Amino acid sequence: MQKGRKTRERIIEAALAAAMCRGLEGISIGALAKETGLSKSGLFRHFGSKEALQIAVIKRVTDRFSDDVIRPALDEAGGVERLRSLFTHYLDWLARNENDAAGGFHPGCPFFAIASDNALLAGPVRIFIATQTQRLRETVERMAWKAVDEGVFREDLDVSRFAFTLISLIFGFNFFRRILDDPAFAARATDAFEDLLADAAMRSDPPSVNGEKCE
Amino acid sequence: MQKGRKTRERIIEAALAAAMCRGLEGISIGALAKETGLSKSGLFRHFGSKEALQIAVIKRVTDRFSDDVIRPALDEAGGVERLRSLFTHYLDWLARNENDAAGGFHPGCPFFAIASDNALLAGPVRIFIATQTQRLRETVERMAWKAVDEGVFREDLDVSRFAFTLISLIFGFNFFRRILDDPAFAARATDAFEDLLADAAMRSDPPSVNGEKCE
Repeated sequence: MQKGRKTRERIIEAALAAAMCRGLEGISIGALAKETGLSKSGLFRHFGSKEALQIAVIKRVTDRFSDDVIRPALDEAGGVERLRSLFTHYLDWLARNENDAAGGFHPGCPFFAIASDNALLAGPVRIFIATQTQRLRETVERMAWKAVDEGVFREDLDVSRFAFTLISLIFGFNFFRRILDDPAFAARATDAFEDLLADAAMRSDPPSVNGEKCE
Repeated sequence: MQKGRKTRERIIEAALAAAMCRGLEGISIGALAKETGLSKSGLFRHFGSKEALQIAVIKRVTDRFSDDVIRPALDEAGGVERLRSLFTHYLDWLARNENDAAGGFHPGCPFFAIASDNALLAGPVRIFIATQTQRLRETVERMAWKAVDEGVFREDLDVSRFAFTLISLIFGFNFFRRILDDPAFAARATDAFEDLLADAAMRSDPPSVNGEKCE
């Protein structure tokens, strides 16, 4: 039992490394079997299908994302503090994954790379990714609602639009960072995020805004 | 000469269709030869290398993007009108490419799908993509500068940040649309874009803003 779990772990880690370099479709059962010292049929015994292994890999990425990005944000007390923590940890997470990747150039967000894979945009893998994407949106929206409830964000804030923009800034950062090797993008993304917070905090009447949000 | 050009065309079109479904690395010389009725060596005679063919495919995408998105925007007179045209045509372009794709689910921006391909993030293909990405940024920045010059955008606007945010919204739209099959994202992206325009038009003093930009 214990040994089975360890083997499963080793397979997932090896598959994750492959997926980060070549996408989920780049997971080769033959290469994984070689790497983990298992036979192909032994490997299949642990997962049943390549699709089940792909989902295990995405689930691993999602669990790490929860531990490294979502949980520290939820430890903060206020809505805006949660959003700021989430944004900062997300950028850090992208940088960390960059360093982790074995030999690849700027892999960026593994979740994003996986989701960009056209071959996967059907079936259970896609449904799993869609569910995770919805969860991220909802998490950001809940944090924004909290800031509204706390009176920091304005009451007429379009929370869906806010979450969409926040996540888009992170995707933009990930894309530009991958393609243009320019460290200025971290500061640009952070500045754009602070603009978004300032706009969310701004009251149409009176025109003055919360000093902390709007310098 | 004429016949050679036509054959080249046919190869590029078939390679582009393959790249939109499976990424640039998904271009198989064997499959292309079969599809175009050429021998593998005949096919290589037209391009010299797989890499040269990949660049020809990205160049084709870029040319179409220029024709369909950039040029109509440059036909507009004012900076803000150019930005609005670019944004609208860009969203349309993503929707159109979606319909073009043979059998794939929501391929979205072919340029984006191509750029997400980790295997390509080295060598001349990456340099070509980086150059095109820079050009897009610069085009957006020039339009924003024009709006500043025209007195529509405020003078202290951070034009780099503006361009980063605008392009991020498009990437966010492309991602969410691909993953979550929800038509609301077009309206959400457009609303977020209008917020960005309003913020760029807003003067810190006096607090009133251009009526057209800010409802």
